[in-house]
Amino acid sequence: MKTNPVIECLLDHRSIRKFTEEEPTDEVLETIVRAGQQAPFASQTYSVLLSRKRETNPFKAPLSFTVCVDSYKFERIMEERGWEFYMNDLSFLFLSIQDASLMAENMIIAGRSLGLGSCLLGAAMGRADKIAEAFNLPPRVFPLVGLVMGYPDEDPPPRPRYPMEYTLFEDEYPRCAGKTVREAIKVMDEGYLAQDYYSSRNAKIPLTRGREETYTFKNYSWTEHICRKLGQWSPDPKMLLEQLEKRGFHITKSRE
Amino acid sequence: MKTNPVIECLLDHRSIRKFTEEEPTDEVLETIVRAGQQAPFASQTYSVLLSRKRETNPFKAPLSFTVCVDSYKFERIMEERGWEFYMNDLSFLFLSIQDASLMAENMIIAGRSLGLGSCLLGAAMGRADKIAEAFNLPPRVFPLVGLVMGYPDEDPPPRPRYPMEYTLFEDEYPRCAGKTVREAIKVMDEGYLAQDYYSSRNAKIPLTRGREETYTFKNYSWTEHICRKLGQWSPDPKMLLEQLEKRGFHITKSRE
Repeated sequence: MKTNPVIECLLDHRSIRKFTEEEPTDEVLETIVRAGQQAPFASQTYSVLLSRKRETNPFKAPLSFTVCVDSYKFERIMEERGWEFYMNDLSFLFLSIQDASLMAENMIIAGRSLGLGSCLLGAAMGRADKIAEAFNLPPRVFPLVGLVMGYPDEDPPPRPRYPMEYTLFEDEYPRCAGKTVREAIKVMDEGYLAQDYYSSRNAKIPLTRGREETYTFKNYSWTEHICRKLGQWSPDPKMLLEQLEKRGFHITKSRE
Repeated sequence: MKTNPVIECLLDHRSIRKFTEEEPTDEVLETIVRAGQQAPFASQTYSVLLSRKRETNPFKAPLSFTVCVDSYKFERIMEERGWEFYMNDLSFLFLSIQDASLMAENMIIAGRSLGLGSCLLGAAMGRADKIAEAFNLPPRVFPLVGLVMGYPDEDPPPRPRYPMEYTLFEDEYPRCAGKTVREAIKVMDEGYLAQDYYSSRNAKIPLTRGREETYTFKNYSWTEHICRKLGQWSPDPKMLLEQLEKRGFHITKSRE
């Protein structure tokens, strides 16, 4: 492995959920957002909402961002130039979620380099209507993900990731089976268990659909956690479709 | 603005489309992908395809990645653990596009820190079936975006971004109008024009829908370019929906 201060910063990433009382200065805030903006983009169709009211986020972080997909803002530019938005919303969203995420990752990294920790919060899409109300969002702005940031009051280790062989595939995608799958499970599960990740946060997704709980925090592992997420939650796209429609996005409609 | 080697690296980003003959070593490649993996994730549901055949990508880069949303791989883990995938595909994709993009941005930054330039290629989604064939992808893996990388044989300046006031909104989202919109247009257009961005690449999106060309490279600007993209292209989600369905993703279906 090569190394340098940037690589070190990238490899040192961990989510931070406890923050000190220290307030980041405006200069720190602007540096983080400015560095975010410099990420590559297809159309720069995102916005960043900010609340500095600690009580508005679950970890009482001093900076609580909501990264949004934003068509409204560019539509104002189109208006000014005599154009109308015409791309289908599905393609627009698939591209703009990428723009927004590339930007968010730059913010996370810039924050880390300045001593701030952060945590992404996945609940934003399901609460898009509530966030829209709180920030008085116009239509065509869709809250994608929360990002809280502040000076860390905890120092957890970086978390494990899949083996490289389960992530990077050259020339041909292998059929994953047997040993490879079990090795990926092992690396992730033993890694998270050794760090007491779920037990220290008392985080266990309850079982539904007739399954009986047999896991304790001694064996409740990363793959168990993600199985419960992808294996139990939100079988119906209706809720997300409704949130999108409330914000003015209609992903199955053609404009012609 | 605060600064440090990480911030400098983030602000120094520009897309690179010309590469030298030098081949990145395996160590460099592995550092880049490893740094990519350490990005935050919801479910780690992405994969990275790699081709080192220069002729397979438009800029003849030594490394040509395709970042994919990947449910297949985790479904093998679920199988091994006695689970079945249950989350609706729309929510899954909206979350996994984020995971994949966070990872891609880390790869881009790690690459830059090691002297490599890169360029994202947006055509992957529209060619998902072709990429699936080339890499023998199983179902439930969806090619999201291309990322070519190599040692730069050009040295373009970083490109302009929106003013901070058009990106970061504290407590309330303003109704963008008049001066603010024109200022955002001005910053982007004058910035790109001053760098001869489109003229040097001879890149102009042809006008359709009865519009007549009146622009030369003297005034063909960033907002004109993006207006032509979002104002003309792909009014129908059908093509993307079909590509998703071919890969086994059905975004309007409920699993119940």
